[in-house]
Amino acid sequence: MIHAETPTRNDTTRYSRRLDGMPRSCVRDLMANTANTDIISFAGGLPASECIPLDTIRQATEAVWTRYGTTALGYGASEGEPALREWIAHHWLPRKGIQAKPSEILIVNGSQQALDLLGKVLLDPGAPIAVERPTYLAAVQAFSAFGADFREVPLDDEGPDITALAQALRGNSSLRADGARLFYTVPNFQNPSGLLMSERRRMELLDEMRRHPAVLIEDDPYGELYYANQPPPLLMSQTAGPGVLLGTFSKMVAPGFRLGFIWAKGAMATHLGTVKQAADLCTSRLAQLQLFETLCRLDLDKHLQGLRDHYRMKRDAMDLALQRHLAGRATWQKPTGGMFFWVRLQSGTDTKALLVQAAKAGVAFADGGSFHAGGGGRDWLRLNFTSSTPADMERGLAILAECLGKSD
Amino acid sequence: MIHAETPTRNDTTRYSRRLDGMPRSCVRDLMANTANTDIISFAGGLPASECIPLDTIRQATEAVWTRYGTTALGYGASEGEPALREWIAHHWLPRKGIQAKPSEILIVNGSQQALDLLGKVLLDPGAPIAVERPTYLAAVQAFSAFGADFREVPLDDEGPDITALAQALRGNSSLRADGARLFYTVPNFQNPSGLLMSERRRMELLDEMRRHPAVLIEDDPYGELYYANQPPPLLMSQTAGPGVLLGTFSKMVAPGFRLGFIWAKGAMATHLGTVKQAADLCTSRLAQLQLFETLCRLDLDKHLQGLRDHYRMKRDAMDLALQRHLAGRATWQKPTGGMFFWVRLQSGTDTKALLVQAAKAGVAFADGGSFHAGGGGRDWLRLNFTSSTPADMERGLAILAECLGKSD
Repeated sequence: MIHAETPTRNDTTRYSRRLDGMPRSCVRDLMANTANTDIISFAGGLPASECIPLDTIRQATEAVWTRYGTTALGYGASEGEPALREWIAHHWLPRKGIQAKPSEILIVNGSQQALDLLGKVLLDPGAPIAVERPTYLAAVQAFSAFGADFREVPLDDEGPDITALAQALRGNSSLRADGARLFYTVPNFQNPSGLLMSERRRMELLDEMRRHPAVLIEDDPYGELYYANQPPPLLMSQTAGPGVLLGTFSKMVAPGFRLGFIWAKGAMATHLGTVKQAADLCTSRLAQLQLFETLCRLDLDKHLQGLRDHYRMKRDAMDLALQRHLAGRATWQKPTGGMFFWVRLQSGTDTKALLVQAAKAGVAFADGGSFHAGGGGRDWLRLNFTSSTPADMERGLAILAECLGKSD
Repeated sequence: MIHAETPTRNDTTRYSRRLDGMPRSCVRDLMANTANTDIISFAGGLPASECIPLDTIRQATEAVWTRYGTTALGYGASEGEPALREWIAHHWLPRKGIQAKPSEILIVNGSQQALDLLGKVLLDPGAPIAVERPTYLAAVQAFSAFGADFREVPLDDEGPDITALAQALRGNSSLRADGARLFYTVPNFQNPSGLLMSERRRMELLDEMRRHPAVLIEDDPYGELYYANQPPPLLMSQTAGPGVLLGTFSKMVAPGFRLGFIWAKGAMATHLGTVKQAADLCTSRLAQLQLFETLCRLDLDKHLQGLRDHYRMKRDAMDLALQRHLAGRATWQKPTGGMFFWVRLQSGTDTKALLVQAAKAGVAFADGGSFHAGGGGRDWLRLNFTSSTPADMERGLAILAECLGKSD
């Protein structure tokens, strides 16, 4: 024990206990360290830069200066700009079968902040929560910060295993306190697996959720990025139970705005507003107005159809490159939407070690272990196909295959 | 107890315990509810809109499209844009007597997010922390979210009372666990009191801090807004002890960017980067590049001198209006910098009740109770003088005096 009168600068007990369990993203750290080299990266979840409607955003920004002047550069309401909240409630969510009021929309700094605010509102240290296996790495990070105790619900070909979900939500005893507080799911082209939850599984999932008080957190960043059939209706459009829907403009328009939203009702909406205020007062008014004016000018149907056509072509290119370089050494499903191939190495190679080697050789991906809240998954890797050119896919997977050959 | 099979939508036990202690800002809620009326507001901490360098920002934005193209609209590093971090480390902090490395600068969504991240990194539920009395309302909100146990250090004419500070940092027993984990202070033109900490008190404060392991959090949003002498050196320029400096561009350039920064070293910087990543992946790259290009074009010395001259004039106008309407009924010190008059009503009127009445009559301010972590201060009010015209000050304080006459 350190005496109060003689502190040291290296006193690790200075920091909160929550830091012990918080993972960092290998991907982001690796990208940060290699940002200026010519590495071929399949690691991120980046939209194709050629699909960002730069001219429209530029014109929209000019309109912001003209219409709003310096008011665009002031503080805004904690819950978000009224015009953007109205657009989401009246123009966007009805397309998804959801009738929402603008007051039920909270604007956040990308949907990652939604996860942070939900953790703050819902979790006490040690609270059990249910997540998919595999699940989105950054959700694990966000919920870890509030001391979540993760219960994994494995995914099969149709979606989350309902028996495992029931067990997670029920807990080990009949005491309500032991049931998971929330279930976090990405039903459309899940990150990292690319899985589209079937309509039947959605119904079973909602039936199970109705038996428990847990909050459903439905995250839908990829719902518009379908390359075959349109996904079945969102879970949150089919239930009156406790839950929220998360949306983002990062994949649809551009990540640089850092804008997403939460649809929440009643006390949940109020609590989220309170913690948003404490977290950063408000989201950038300028960014919100730039996005709103962009949305007013963009032919959204045409833009989204353009994204789908372009990404379908890229997905097919990645699939061919995978077949050329990894056939017989890895297995994967061709995703029907989203941004990722989820690949399993038959050699059982540890992809975290492989990543270090691959990055040196000039190619990056996301290692599978990062997407497993409870460990495991080390023989998987996630490949983004939206932000690379077909030529880079060809070159990058050749390098990866070579690294894999050395490590086998 | 609610049975697991029969949840109700109004189940309040669904939410985390931290929400019980979290205050909301009356000011922000009131502003949100009255945003579209012609209320005269002295409530916010807004810069004068006429001082926002709109033309420069517009030109800077054009340069962003030309120079960075769609890369400006992608994701960025969690810690911030290299160019902006370098500008802060190499161009800004040396002016403040601080030699920092770019890697020690973390970009955040306004300095409010700095408080949130510091709470996450430093506080476990029930952790004692030391704050000034009165203190910045939004710091109470941010630290409350992590279960802080507030210990108040009263301010006198020179700054925080050192005996009270020592007691807060030492705790009630000789056990280290009982000492405050951090001390949060705004030495330059404090919010809400407007107080400038004396040079002598700064030295005494640092002497006391050296005796304890607590982290010093120095928040400096107003240091450049001095209307008489330049403030004494920052605390963080005078100590090698554990601590961080928070800065913001909201008061210096424009709040609409939502950009601030933390200067932190060693393990603290690493931990802050980890929780930033979990909180929202990264701050808007677009906003950071717009600000950076603005800073490259702005004659900052001239701009800051312009702010000082303009705000000095406004402060004097507010002082005269106060004398005309509240002399004999209230006491205040004319602030030598910053954005606020801190006014005490001699009648002992509850300013929270007065605010409701005043808002109906067309004028808003911030009630004093909100700035007291441990209760009290209900006969004080805070008036912003930077964002109103002298005519509105005259009209607003006349209305306030009338409301006060009715309530006396």
